[in-house]
Amino acid sequence: MDKAESWLDKALHYRFRDTDLFALALTHRSATGRNNERLEFLGDAVLDFVISDLVFKIRPEASEGDLSKLRSSLVKDTSLASLAVGLGLGEYLILGSGERKTGGHRRDSILADALEAIFGAVYLDSGIDAARKVIGHVFAERLEDLPDAEVLRDPKTRLQEWLQARKLALPEYELVSVSGQAHQQRFAVTCTVTELSQTTNGESTTRRKAEQQSAKNMLKILSGERP
Amino acid sequence: MDKAESWLDKALHYRFRDTDLFALALTHRSATGRNNERLEFLGDAVLDFVISDLVFKIRPEASEGDLSKLRSSLVKDTSLASLAVGLGLGEYLILGSGERKTGGHRRDSILADALEAIFGAVYLDSGIDAARKVIGHVFAERLEDLPDAEVLRDPKTRLQEWLQARKLALPEYELVSVSGQAHQQRFAVTCTVTELSQTTNGESTTRRKAEQQSAKNMLKILSGERP
Repeated sequence: MDKAESWLDKALHYRFRDTDLFALALTHRSATGRNNERLEFLGDAVLDFVISDLVFKIRPEASEGDLSKLRSSLVKDTSLASLAVGLGLGEYLILGSGERKTGGHRRDSILADALEAIFGAVYLDSGIDAARKVIGHVFAERLEDLPDAEVLRDPKTRLQEWLQARKLALPEYELVSVSGQAHQQRFAVTCTVTELSQTTNGESTTRRKAEQQSAKNMLKILSGERP
Repeated sequence: MDKAESWLDKALHYRFRDTDLFALALTHRSATGRNNERLEFLGDAVLDFVISDLVFKIRPEASEGDLSKLRSSLVKDTSLASLAVGLGLGEYLILGSGERKTGGHRRDSILADALEAIFGAVYLDSGIDAARKVIGHVFAERLEDLPDAEVLRDPKTRLQEWLQARKLALPEYELVSVSGQAHQQRFAVTCTVTELSQTTNGESTTRRKAEQQSAKNMLKILSGERP
């Protein structure tokens, strides 16, 4: 564990009093029955609480809905996995031989779970303030670059809000064509804002995605016209 | 607020330093734009963390899946609402006149949200240890009577686990009849454990529910036979 410990000290600025707890946090269920799943359960709740508290305070004017979106953007698995990759966590994971051979140390879910387990372990080792410090350190850049909650909303929702704020009618989406064979279909739709005489196109693998694409294109036009 | 404050002191053993925060926690969005929604967001995360920590420590042997089930059983809306009713919270809610007339102070979601908002407000007012204390007080009885995680699993899952633990083959579910008109159909199924020569019946409004019912009946027989 010496190598892992010095990594943790460098990457997360934390030293465990109970190093067994740290080893447990790194241990995936493929390795042994005594693994990091319970710590992940706890760490997930610790992380949610610490991040909720941070976004609540950083964004004193944000609505509950926007706070939820900001929090999910920070704590979702892909976000945690990319933080874990940045920290170089993969190298220290303890995996079963099957997982190791098939690249488990690069798998998003395994990385995300282990990072949460580390947060849980830090909490057990030293309490909530130590966990806050480690989490604040890991998320420092993301918190500095926290997006406006608005951009986290999907394009259709944003378009609807944009129009409602201006007392304009909702956009109309129309399916124009479906091409390609089953399981490889392409959907083409149009998005029309009648009162502004604007129509945009969208194309994708599902009707929903095509509509989002067309709404995104409409937002570009509208924000260009009325900056 | 005097009446509400003395209620809180009595019911939750807590006095706010910032009584405006307490008033905000009681204020439903039907009353005004400045309401308890942000506090609910924060309180929900505080509650999840505190309860996760408690079940983690109370059940040192439970799996992550069982810990999740125990936590949900405690923090789900209906559970929070019934705690809120027990505390007499409804009387102190600040609602818009429409909500008040239609019985909003008895509505589960409004009660649950307000209780979470109070936890969030206590946290902001005095920190996490005060929130732990208040939550521990509110949940004291529930935590004492914490069920075995096993009984929170659905009957089909429990039956499967029971059989697997004894190296027996999985049960077979068979649809016996569907009766009644559309939207009022009744499904009758049987559950058979061939190796034990047992068959039970289940009947309900969906096939899934009927299967759960038949599994429940099978568990009764099997636990009666092998206590």
